[in-house]
Amino acid sequence: MALPPDLLALAAEVSNWGRWGDDDELGTLNLIDAAAVARGLAAARTGIRFSLAIGLDANGPQLGTIPGRINPLHTMVAINMAYTGDTDDCCFSDDILTMGLQACTHWDGLAHVSYGGLLYNGFSASSTTAERGASRCGIEKVRTIVSRAVLLDVARAIGHDVLPAHHPISEADLDAAVGLAGVAIEPGDVLLIRTGQMTYLKARDREGYLLSDQPGLTTHTIGWLRRHDVAAVAIDTLAMELHPGEDPAVLFPVHAIQIRDMGLTQGQNFDLEDLADHCASDGVYEMLLVANPEPVTGGTGAPVNPVAIK
Amino acid sequence: MALPPDLLALAAEVSNWGRWGDDDELGTLNLIDAAAVARGLAAARTGIRFSLAIGLDANGPQLGTIPGRINPLHTMVAINMAYTGDTDDCCFSDDILTMGLQACTHWDGLAHVSYGGLLYNGFSASSTTAERGASRCGIEKVRTIVSRAVLLDVARAIGHDVLPAHHPISEADLDAAVGLAGVAIEPGDVLLIRTGQMTYLKARDREGYLLSDQPGLTTHTIGWLRRHDVAAVAIDTLAMELHPGEDPAVLFPVHAIQIRDMGLTQGQNFDLEDLADHCASDGVYEMLLVANPEPVTGGTGAPVNPVAIK
Amino acid sequence: MALPPDLLALAAEVSNWGRWGDDDELGTLNLIDAAAVARGLAAARTGIRFSLAIGLDANGPQLGTIPGRINPLHTMVAINMAYTGDTDDCCFSDDILTMGLQACTHWDGLAHVSYGGLLYNGFSASSTTAERGASRCGIEKVRTIVSRAVLLDVARAIGHDVLPAHHPISEADLDAAVGLAGVAIEPGDVLLIRTGQMTYLKARDREGYLLSDQPGLTTHTIGWLRRHDVAAVAIDTLAMELHPGEDPAVLFPVHAIQIRDMGLTQGQNFDLEDLADHCASDGVYEMLLVANPEPVTGGTGAPVNPVAIK
Amino acid sequence: MALPPDLLALAAEVSNWGRWGDDDELGTLNLIDAAAVARGLAAARTGIRFSLAIGLDANGPQLGTIPGRINPLHTMVAINMAYTGDTDDCCFSDDILTMGLQACTHWDGLAHVSYGGLLYNGFSASSTTAERGASRCGIEKVRTIVSRAVLLDVARAIGHDVLPAHHPISEADLDAAVGLAGVAIEPGDVLLIRTGQMTYLKARDREGYLLSDQPGLTTHTIGWLRRHDVAAVAIDTLAMELHPGEDPAVLFPVHAIQIRDMGLTQGQNFDLEDLADHCASDGVYEMLLVANPEPVTGGTGAPVNPVAIK
Repeated sequence: MALPPDLLALAAEVSNWGRWGDDDELGTLNLIDAAAVARGLAAARTGIRFSLAIGLDANGPQLGTIPGRINPLHTMVAINMAYTGDTDDCCFSDDILTMGLQACTHWDGLAHVSYGGLLYNGFSASSTTAERGASRCGIEKVRTIVSRAVLLDVARAIGHDVLPAHHPISEADLDAAVGLAGVAIEPGDVLLIRTGQMTYLKARDREGYLLSDQPGLTTHTIGWLRRHDVAAVAIDTLAMELHPGEDPAVLFPVHAIQIRDMGLTQGQNFDLEDLADHCASDGVYEMLLVANPEPVTGGTGAPVNPVAIK
Repeated sequence: MALPPDLLALAAEVSNWGRWGDDDELGTLNLIDAAAVARGLAAARTGIRFSLAIGLDANGPQLGTIPGRINPLHTMVAINMAYTGDTDDCCFSDDILTMGLQACTHWDGLAHVSYGGLLYNGFSASSTTAERGASRCGIEKVRTIVSRAVLLDVARAIGHDVLPAHHPISEADLDAAVGLAGVAIEPGDVLLIRTGQMTYLKARDREGYLLSDQPGLTTHTIGWLRRHDVAAVAIDTLAMELHPGEDPAVLFPVHAIQIRDMGLTQGQNFDLEDLADHCASDGVYEMLLVANPEPVTGGTGAPVNPVAIK
Repeated sequence: MALPPDLLALAAEVSNWGRWGDDDELGTLNLIDAAAVARGLAAARTGIRFSLAIGLDANGPQLGTIPGRINPLHTMVAINMAYTGDTDDCCFSDDILTMGLQACTHWDGLAHVSYGGLLYNGFSASSTTAERGASRCGIEKVRTIVSRAVLLDVARAIGHDVLPAHHPISEADLDAAVGLAGVAIEPGDVLLIRTGQMTYLKARDREGYLLSDQPGLTTHTIGWLRRHDVAAVAIDTLAMELHPGEDPAVLFPVHAIQIRDMGLTQGQNFDLEDLADHCASDGVYEMLLVANPEPVTGGTGAPVNPVAIK
Repeated sequence: MALPPDLLALAAEVSNWGRWGDDDELGTLNLIDAAAVARGLAAARTGIRFSLAIGLDANGPQLGTIPGRINPLHTMVAINMAYTGDTDDCCFSDDILTMGLQACTHWDGLAHVSYGGLLYNGFSASSTTAERGASRCGIEKVRTIVSRAVLLDVARAIGHDVLPAHHPISEADLDAAVGLAGVAIEPGDVLLIRTGQMTYLKARDREGYLLSDQPGLTTHTIGWLRRHDVAAVAIDTLAMELHPGEDPAVLFPVHAIQIRDMGLTQGQNFDLEDLADHCASDGVYEMLLVANPEPVTGGTGAPVNPVAIK
C-alpha cells in the first residue's frame, strides 16, 4: 500500500529536496561540515578503535528471504601459486568475492529506495538501470564518511540487554539514550543506534536475527532525526525499522521517507556490541567515526568496515 | 628462480618472525600502538579528507594478464522493485558485486605471499585452502588500520610528475621524499609512496598503467623500511615493486621478503594524486590515515576505501 | 537509428506474431514437430558425434567491449577437502562458475532483443526486470532443441577457408551452401552456418575473432530463412550478422527482426570446424542436432554444449 | 574414517585403473562405443523428448549445508538497453549467472572425488589447483554423453511412489527395476535411477529433498554396476548414495569407489518424474540420452540439461 496521507504529510515535512541544490546526490551527508569533522576528531581521545563490521562470509545474515541478496561467497583462484612452478619462488594466493552489496555491514545509498517513480531530490527512479546501476545517487559519490558519532544505546537506556522482539523505538526511547550518552546531538553527527539484536547473529542464530519480529525505528522518530539534522544513522539490525511495521499494510515507511524524502544515508548490520560495552564502562558515548563505503560505481549501497575511535 | 643467497640473507636480516609471538598474524601492524594513533589523530588538523580509492567497476586496472583477478562486476538483482507490485509503495534496488580482492585499491594481507612452503611467522602455506581461504593471516584479522601516514612523493621529490618507466626506487629516493615531507618517520607510521603512475589509469590508459615497465620499490629499500619500522606501505602502482625486477629471473622479491619475512601489509593501486597536490600546496605531508580492509573471512587481501585526513 | 521503412516492411512480412497463439513464447522452435525430430534421428547414421561448444574459461571470446558480458570465471571452493580432515577419507572438490550467459557458445533467447518497447509476439519489453529476468520468453521455457540440422558451409561453398572480413552473406551464398550440402531445407530444420571465423578464436586471436569486421548474415537473408521456416539458426561468429551492418546507422537489424519479429532463436560462437571438415570429407551435411540450452530461469540466453550426430 | 578393509577390497575388485590406458581421463565413458550410440539412436522411436533438468535459479536444492555450493544466482547487466539511447533501435538484455557447478542437475566429473591422495587412474589429487581447477579429469574432456539410457524406476518396481526415507538400494532392487524395464542392461548404457525423491523438490520442499535421510545407492550395488559395465549413472537425489551411509563413520563410500576406483561419471538432481510416468504408461524404459556437460575448463563437475528421447 502506498504511504497514507499522514505519512505523505510527514514526508513533505522532513523533505530535504532542493536544500543543497537541485543536483545534490548526497543528502544529509552534506551536513558533515568542518565543524562536524573537527568535533569527531576531538572525540577521539584515547585512540581505542572498534571495528563495527561483521565478517564477510557465508555466515552473514542473509537467509534467502530477500531475493538475490546473497551472503558473501569467497572463492580462490590461486593458492600459493608459483608462476615458475617452483614453490621456492614467490608464490601468490588470490581470491574472488561475490556478495550482495546490502548483505552484511553496509550503507544504503540514496538510490536504494524510491516511490512514486522518484528518488531523493526528485531524480527519476529510471536513472537506475541494469547497465549502469544508479546513475543518480550512486554510492561512489559518497567519497568519505568521517564525523562525530554518538552511540544511542536504546536497549541499555531503557533497561534491556536486547530490545524485546518488535519493540517500536519511540522519540522517548531516543531521548532516553541521548540522556544516557550525556551529549547533545548536533547537526552532522552520525547516530549509532543499538538494539542489541546483533547478539543473535553473533551467537550464530540467524533466524533470531533476521526472522524474529525485529525491533527498530518507527515513523514517529523520523521527525526527531530531521530536527536534529543528523548526517547518517546506523543500526544493529537488518531491517533498521520496526518490521513488520506498525501498519503491516505499509511496507518499510521508514526507509521510504528517510532515504527518498530526507536523503538520509542508512547503515545496517553494524556490530555495536563491543563499542557499547566500552561506552557503558567509561560513560563516554561520543567518538570519531570513519565509515567510508566501498566506492562501487553505480552501487545502490556498499559494504563498509566502519571504525569508531574513542 | 628462488631467492639468491644475498636476498635470503636480507630476508633473514629484516625478518620479524617471532617478534610479536609465535601466534602473531598481524606482523608490522603491531607497530601501530597508542602513540602512533595519537600521532595520527594529531596530524588531522584541518579535517580535509581525501579518499584514496579508485572506483570499483569494469574500468579497474586489470587486463586479464593475472588469471582470475577480475575487475569488479556490478550487476542488479532488483531495480525499484515493489514487493506489492505498486510503485507508489516503497521500492528497492539491490545489487551484487563480484571482484578480485586484489583487483583495485586493496591491501595485500600476509597470506597473499609465501615461499619455501611458509607464510609470515613460519605458518605453513598449506593453511590456505580452497574451502577456508587463509586460515592463518587472513585479512579479517586486521580489524582496523588507523595511524599517522606520511606521503612520500618520490616523483616530486626527484623532479618528476611521474617517475620514468622502470625507475627503481632507491634509499636515496626515499630519503629525498622524506626530506620533501619534512617529517621524521616514526615506528608505526604508514607510508604512502607516490610514483605518479596512477595518472595513466585516471586517463583511462590501462595499458600504460599495467603493462608499462612499472617503476617501484626495489630490494634495496627493504632494509630502509625495516629500520624505520613502518606499519604498512601503500603505493600508486599495481605491482608495488619494480616490475620486471632488477634480476628478471627473480620474481617479485620485494613481495616475497616484505610480506613473508617482514610481515609488512602492502597497499596497491592507491590514488594519491589529489592528496599529493594538496601536500605540495601546503607543504604538509603527514595526515591521519584510516584504511580498514573489508573483513573478508579468510581473504588473502581485501578492498579498502582509505581516507587521509589532514 | 530506428529501423527504416524498408526494414519495418520486412519485419512485418516475416513476422510470426500470433502464428502459434497469443501466449506463445517459443517462436520458430514450434516448427520442430515430430517430423523434424524423426528427420533428425534418421540423419544420425554412423553415431559420430561433434561437440560444437568452445570451452568455458577465461580464454572465451569476450574482450570487455560489451559491458558486463564477462568470460567464464572458474573458481574453487573445495579442493580434495576431507570433511573429517583425513585425506584417506572421501575428499571432494567443488567449484563455482560466473559467466555472461551470452559470453561463449550460447543461444540468444527471444527476450534478448526488443525494439519499440516490445518483445516477440508483442509482449511488453518491461516484462524483463532485474528481479525476475525475463518473465516472458525466458530461455528456461525452451526445454529441448532436438531436430535435424544442416550445415551450410558458406565459406567452403564460395571458395574460402574463412569468409573475407566483412563479407555480407547473401541469399545466393546460402543457396550455394545448400547446393554444396545437397539437401533440401525443410520446416523445422536447424541451420548451422559456417563462416570459418572461429578459426581466429581457436588460434587464440580474440581480436581477430571479435574486433575484425565480422562477416555475417544480412537483412537480405531474413526472408530466405522465413520462407524456409527454419526452427533456429546458429553461426560461428560473435555477432551472427554482418558487423558493422550495411547501414552503420542501423544497429543490429538482423537481431532485431529475426528475434523480435520472426521469433527465431539464434546461436552464436558455435565451433563448426571439425564438423565442417567431416562433412567435406564424406559429403554428408545433415545430422541430428541436440542443443538444449541450460534452463536458466528468466535467462535471456543460455550456454549450450550442442552435439551434432552424423 | 578411511575405507575399511572390505571396501578397499571392493575398490580393488571394481577398479578400472589402466583399463583404457595410463593417460585415460574418461573412465567408464569409454564404454560408449559405436554400438551403444547405435542402440541409443534405435531406442528413439517416437521422438518424444523429456528434459531432465531442474531450473537454474534460487529455488535450487542447496540450503547452505555444503559450503560454497550456492544455488544459481541470476543477475542482469542490461535490460532492453539501446546503445543509442533510442528504444526504437535494437535493444539488448544481457545477464550473468553465478552457480555451484554441483548445485543443480549436474554430472560429477572424475576430479570431483579423491582419497589417499589419488584421483581416478592414479592421477595425483594435487593435479587439481585453485589456479587451473582440475588439470586431470576435468569435465571439459567429456565432450559428449550420447548413449542408450535405461530408466530403472526402483521406487515403482518395489511398490512405492517415493522410496521410504533412508531406503538402501540393493542389488535386488536394481534387478527388480530391470525386470520392470524389461530390457537387458548392456555395456555402455547409462542408467537413470529413480527414487522419487525429486517430488519433494518439485513441491518446493527443499528440506525434505536435501535433509531427510536420503534413500540411495549402497556399496552393495557397486559390483552390480561394474559387472554390467554401465557408462554412467544418474539419479534423482542430491547425494546419489544412501545418506547417512550404512556405516555412518564411513563418509560417501559410493562416491569414493565409483568415481575414484571405477571412474564412473555420476549424475545428480536429475528430474525423472515426467519420464517415469511416460515409461509406466507405455511400458518402454529405454531411450536415447543426450546429456553433454557444459565444457567448463578444469571443472570438477558441470551443469547439464539432459534430454531423453523415446
